[in-house]
Amino acid sequence: MSKSIKLAILGLGTVGTGVVNLINDNLAELKRRSGSDIIITEVGTRRQRDDIDPTIIQNDDLMAIAASDNVDIVIEVIGGITLAKDIMIHAIKNGKHVVTANKALLAEHGNEIFALAEAHNVHVAYEAAVAGGIPIIKVMREALAANKIDWLAGIINGTGNFIMTEMRDKGRPFADVLAEAQELGYAEADPTFDVEGIDAAHKLALLASIAFGIPLQFDKVYCEGITGITLQDVNYAEELGYRIKHLGFAVRRDSKDNNQEDQGIELRVHPTLIPQDALLANVNGVKNAVLVSSHPLGQTLYCGDGAGAGATASAVMADVMDLVRVLGANDQDSSRSHHVPHLAFMPEQLSDTPILRAEQMKTGYYLRVHAYDNPGVLADITRILSDAGINIDAILQKPAHKLGEVPVIILTLPVIESQMNEAIAKIEKLAAVADKVVRIRLDELAQ
Amino acid sequence: MSKSIKLAILGLGTVGTGVVNLINDNLAELKRRSGSDIIITEVGTRRQRDDIDPTIIQNDDLMAIAASDNVDIVIEVIGGITLAKDIMIHAIKNGKHVVTANKALLAEHGNEIFALAEAHNVHVAYEAAVAGGIPIIKVMREALAANKIDWLAGIINGTGNFIMTEMRDKGRPFADVLAEAQELGYAEADPTFDVEGIDAAHKLALLASIAFGIPLQFDKVYCEGITGITLQDVNYAEELGYRIKHLGFAVRRDSKDNNQEDQGIELRVHPTLIPQDALLANVNGVKNAVLVSSHPLGQTLYCGDGAGAGATASAVMADVMDLVRVLGANDQDSSRSHHVPHLAFMPEQLSDTPILRAEQMKTGYYLRVHAYDNPGVLADITRILSDAGINIDAILQKPAHKLGEVPVIILTLPVIESQMNEAIAKIEKLAAVADKVVRIRLDELAQ
Repeated sequence: MSKSIKLAILGLGTVGTGVVNLINDNLAELKRRSGSDIIITEVGTRRQRDDIDPTIIQNDDLMAIAASDNVDIVIEVIGGITLAKDIMIHAIKNGKHVVTANKALLAEHGNEIFALAEAHNVHVAYEAAVAGGIPIIKVMREALAANKIDWLAGIINGTGNFIMTEMRDKGRPFADVLAEAQELGYAEADPTFDVEGIDAAHKLALLASIAFGIPLQFDKVYCEGITGITLQDVNYAEELGYRIKHLGFAVRRDSKDNNQEDQGIELRVHPTLIPQDALLANVNGVKNAVLVSSHPLGQTLYCGDGAGAGATASAVMADVMDLVRVLGANDQDSSRSHHVPHLAFMPEQLSDTPILRAEQMKTGYYLRVHAYDNPGVLADITRILSDAGINIDAILQKPAHKLGEVPVIILTLPVIESQMNEAIAKIEKLAAVADKVVRIRLDELAQ
Repeated sequence: MSKSIKLAILGLGTVGTGVVNLINDNLAELKRRSGSDIIITEVGTRRQRDDIDPTIIQNDDLMAIAASDNVDIVIEVIGGITLAKDIMIHAIKNGKHVVTANKALLAEHGNEIFALAEAHNVHVAYEAAVAGGIPIIKVMREALAANKIDWLAGIINGTGNFIMTEMRDKGRPFADVLAEAQELGYAEADPTFDVEGIDAAHKLALLASIAFGIPLQFDKVYCEGITGITLQDVNYAEELGYRIKHLGFAVRRDSKDNNQEDQGIELRVHPTLIPQDALLANVNGVKNAVLVSSHPLGQTLYCGDGAGAGATASAVMADVMDLVRVLGANDQDSSRSHHVPHLAFMPEQLSDTPILRAEQMKTGYYLRVHAYDNPGVLADITRILSDAGINIDAILQKPAHKLGEVPVIILTLPVIESQMNEAIAKIEKLAAVADKVVRIRLDELAQ
């Protein structure tokens, strides 16, 4: 029999609401993967909300929720430091596991909080605190656990990256882009934390600890913002084959490259020229990315949305799922205990969703048709496609290259393969078509 | 008191040797992170090896090792199907946990193997089976566990990606590049598995199961290789703003975009045109990458080395570390049980490595010097840098843009910041230098 795991969500702002929505949207998936029922029992909110399931208790006394017998896991998404810290400590002392997105609190008081959690035998999980939906905490704590991390470099502030991207792409000056970022809601009214690099420094302190096994030392991060970057330097950098990104670096300097006195760890946040063809240089807009160089793995890159309700909720709930696997383990069935299912979903929950046959698949197409140089042939081809309900996205007709044959290149929007098969058979029967039609699938990789 | 976890490595080829080397290189790090001693007790190898620690038992009877009382975890890296399957089943029946890199075996017989493992209460872990060192299995099973996966697209065969990259970059025909890939050891003498997409289909079957919660169905993957791709099509694609990559797709088609009859899952491996500015289009050479689109997270990308001794050993040992955390848990100290340490390393193992001060840090630099248009000034600047031991990587001198001032742009190799501070102070004192020197750090992001 599966257990029920009871969650409290403290704070119903953007992230808290995102968590509620995620659980509503993906409830079946969560159960199929974890084998447990995940239930929101209480939410902490200052004003009563009528868009919340009435079976959920709403309470403005957050300290009471943090100690409630009706709660297994406390999700702290109120932000800020003083109140959040008091609540988190109260939850830990009451034996609750805590999941948080609060990078500032952990970067500045994490050593104390984690020690308290160890003493009280609970977990404080914080995937959402760094790089939003990118699972960089899990990757570095678990997936790279056998590696020696040499260095990491990250775009870990979306606002800063948006500003640097716009400056370069559109030649707009810093102040101008910052004003737009504020209008779009990417940057706060007081943008200091973003543009001076403090937010990135909070995240870097967390990443550096789990990379090198050192206590959190936010106060030692060297921090330089992007307020001094001019279009002039952006353009010179491009001319020399580089791009300016605002990056956080954590670098281990050892005897290999420094003298004894300089051995140690560099923690620094600053604008940086990096080669234009590096993937990191092509992470644009509000996206985040972290590049990790480790031995013996080499370089790996992790990229995605660094903020926003959906991305942050995904990270919060990944932590919850890890805890659920421990808490939900049935003592009678130790084989399930702490066990991620082999195929990610509980074995009895695998579905028999059919795998489609090739003819049922749907993709865009690139077609190359070799036609004799006949004025009507393009019209014939486009009519056949149009009759088959296939939409053309682009056509490229090249000059004849031999004996009057002209290649016609056509890109189509997505279409069911069987329709495309029929259309191609008709095109190949045209008298003016010289050869088999070459086809390659096409995908815009759109969301 | 920490426990010792005993490993057997079956097969001492590239990957097996990589695992031995990783453990030798990173032994201290493994213990700091897991709290347990990790010991190789037995290796399975056909011929006696004299480069292996003599305390490790070498044995050519792999079935005996799989049942040995001297082993907790069996690492299967012999490859192939028949023997590997027999050994794995024997290990499972003898209560051993198994870690494997064998994609073909799992894609074709995984349903049976995982069911047996469930019945015997052991884990079969397979991070190394897909995309080498990229932790895509952990990411999809755990980090994205709260998401509904919509689709994924992956460059999951390094040889194929190397061939497509070379064809585009250097305008070389398929057969030519394939021959080189074989010489470099990227492609087997019989390259069928790589160039016909079978290897990618094995990996896609695994990814699709953990994305959608379906049994492994390798036999239903639609599979098309790259042997038919011509330079002509590579070039037309580029002209239209696309790039051809050999991709594996797993796509959930639901009522939103298909009629009832076409609902289901598409599993397909084929050459695909994707937009040139997509990050996936810029993953080159033997690198692998997987792009996952899920709700509510959105798109995330994971990129790194998909093969090679170091990357594969990293993935094998990540699985081992997960198992060690379960096996190594001390019953007397349940707080440590199944617990990834908050800061990735055991709390008592955090180190006091110093964080370097800004003046001790070492980076390359971009310098912009505003000088009066004086013929000697460039010589003065370069002499100051050279005297300070700073190596110049590039110089760009722009024509004067106002009142005879000329910006001189200089890129330097990495240098300790205090040296750069001194050099800049001297440059700013030059009579021909008009203003403060603008400096931005520079990093090549090299391994």
